[in-house]
Order: sequence, then C-alpha cells, then structure tokens
Amino acid sequence: MSLHHHFEVRLPDWVQPFIGHWLNGGGPPLDTTEHRMLLAIALSAENVRQGTGGPFGAIVLNQETGQLAGIGVNLVTSSGLSVAHAEIVALSLAQRFVEDWDLAAAAPMQLVSSCEPCAMCLGAVPWSGVSSLVCGADFTDAESAGFDEGDKPSDWLMSLSNRGLEVKVHVLREEAAKVLSEYAQMAGEIYNSRRMQE
Amino acid sequence: MSLHHHFEVRLPDWVQPFIGHWLNGGGPPLDTTEHRMLLAIALSAENVRQGTGGPFGAIVLNQETGQLAGIGVNLVTSSGLSVAHAEIVALSLAQRFVEDWDLAAAAPMQLVSSCEPCAMCLGAVPWSGVSSLVCGADFTDAESAGFDEGDKPSDWLMSLSNRGLEVKVHVLREEAAKVLSEYAQMAGEIYNSRRMQE
Repeated sequence: MSLHHHFEVRLPDWVQPFIGHWLNGGGPPLDTTEHRMLLAIALSAENVRQGTGGPFGAIVLNQETGQLAGIGVNLVTSSGLSVAHAEIVALSLAQRFVEDWDLAAAAPMQLVSSCEPCAMCLGAVPWSGVSSLVCGADFTDAESAGFDEGDKPSDWLMSLSNRGLEVKVHVLREEAAKVLSEYAQMAGEIYNSRRMQE
Repeated sequence: MSLHHHFEVRLPDWVQPFIGHWLNGGGPPLDTTEHRMLLAIALSAENVRQGTGGPFGAIVLNQETGQLAGIGVNLVTSSGLSVAHAEIVALSLAQRFVEDWDLAAAAPMQLVSSCEPCAMCLGAVPWSGVSSLVCGADFTDAESAGFDEGDKPSDWLMSLSNRGLEVKVHVLREEAAKVLSEYAQMAGEIYNSRRMQE
C-alpha cells in the first residue's frame, strides 16, 4: 500500500441521462420549493434502485432562477469515502460549476436535500456559501430507518438562521421519508453506522 | 457553464517530498502523540509558506504502529472547494489507502490535527471510522486568528467519547497556535468566513 495524493468523487453514470430527462419535461420545472424537492427525492430513490448508495439526494440551484448548479446522491459505499454524502457531493459540484469555493460569489444559491443534513453536512452548509437550505425528511425519519444523524447543536435551525441562512423543513416530508423507510425494509446496508458497532 | 459530474482533490506538489524527507529522518519517528503532532503542525506551517491554503494540517495513522495512512492540509482556496479542510482531506486519502470508507475495517486509526476540528470536520470524524482524535490548537486559538469554527454541540468531547473515540486535546498547543497567529498577522485570506460577511 502506498500513500495517496488525490481522491476523486464521481456521480454514477445513470445521473446525467436521469437529469437530462427531468429537465427536458420528464419532471416539473424547478420553480417552486416543492418541485425542487421532488427532484431531490427522485434522486434519493433512484440511487437506491441503481444500487449506487444510500437513500439520500440533494441539489443546489440558483434560488431565484431555479438554474441547476449541482447534483448529489449518497456515494459512500460506491466511492469508498465516508464524506461522500449527497449534500457534500452537491455542494462541491456546484462549486465546480460556479468556479468558486464560495457559492455566494455567484448568486443566492439554495441547497435542497431529501433529508435533514447530518452533523457533518450541517457543518458544511455555512462554509459553502449557500443562502438557503430546504429539507424533506427529518432526523427522526432518518433514525427510524436506522441512520445515525450525528451530534448536532440542539438549536441548529437557530444557528443557521443567525448566520443569515433561510431554512425550510418538512417540505414533502412524507414522500421523502417513504424512500428511507422502504430502504430500511429491504435491509440496505446502513452505511454510516460503524461496522464495529453494528 | 455546464453541470459537473465529478470533482477531485489533490495535494500540492510540495507534500510528497516534504513527507519523504520527514519519514527518512528529517523528522522524529511517528511513535508518540507529540511526535505525530509535530508533523501535523509542520504541514500547517508549510501550507502557508507554500501559499497553498490556510494554516491547518492533519494526518491519519495506524494508532499502534504509527504507519502513515493519510495526509491533509487545508486546500479550500487552491482546490476551490469549501469542504477541503485538512481533516477531510486526510481522512479521505486514508480511506483510499485502506481501500475502505470505514477506517476501522483496517486497524485502529488515529486522526491528528493541528487544530480542533470545525463543526463540519467534527461531524466527519465518527463517520470515518477513526478510533482516536488528537488536537493541537483549540477553537479559541482559531477564533483569535479570525477563523470561524462553526456551531458545535457544546459537549462535543463527551459526544465523541460516548461514541467510543479517544480524544486528546492541547497537544503542543502553543506550537500549533503560533502558526495560526502568525498567519493572522500576515493577514492571510480567512477562507471560511463568507466574503459577504467580511
């Protein structure tokens, strides 16, 4: 084994045609918060169906125009990297899109996630420069499905709000949570519980 | 602008010879916690000197043997990715080294960071599978130098401990904090404060 000097995260091959179809009329326009959440949820479900990772999807878009800037699905098992959560992937790809580590440098940007971010992704949100966060399922839905959300500040909504971020939770919660519970029922690998503790 | 489907994080060219020199007798053996911290601090200082990012360095090693598995420096500005903190880079490269998203699958692994992790990196620690965290400077040192550590659970030490992680803080704190304060004095770009708020 030798030391590595770079790592790469790559969306699975199914994502590009899936998004292309959605944007070409296969899905509703990305105009309302609910329509945007539908795409995040569809990504979470398709990620499970394709066997490329856990039941989580996220997108980053221009909050005003709805232009898509970044796409993410959970890629922990397929990429071999524990940081490859849907939100981290979507934020990083959006930063490649705007060519800046600070998304705020481009336009007011919005992160739409099929599930409330875990402790790591929550910590990543302010550093990314997004100005708005929209969540579907919440931590109780994730935990019911066997996922560990990590240890967050108890007042995380207020923390983000104090940093000037708009946060909207429980957008299409039922639809988002359904993907989680179906995944749990089929006993998918719960990727972010440490194996030693399983 | 078109949507991106992959992103890569690459250590700067200076890292490989720097580490080679260290391991070949340029630095002390990676046997004690203090010796390991010396390397993390040296990486943080060299990262500033080389102009490749903020004053933060981290390594991941086999806790028992001291074999180096991953190296990280802060690469936010040079990589254009807000997630490219030293700890995230070191953990991800270590996961490439052991070829598993769960470092615990290989051996008890240790993350040694020149500074207490920010909220994002702290959230990443349990998902990575490391069994031990060693920190040099603390959040007050980072904040004195103008860095934002994010909103962490107030009892984060206890949270990690409850998850079975060993945590050691303030290892060579003075030496680690000196790199931060020197960086602040030369008015380096404080990369993780949002520009809008500066």
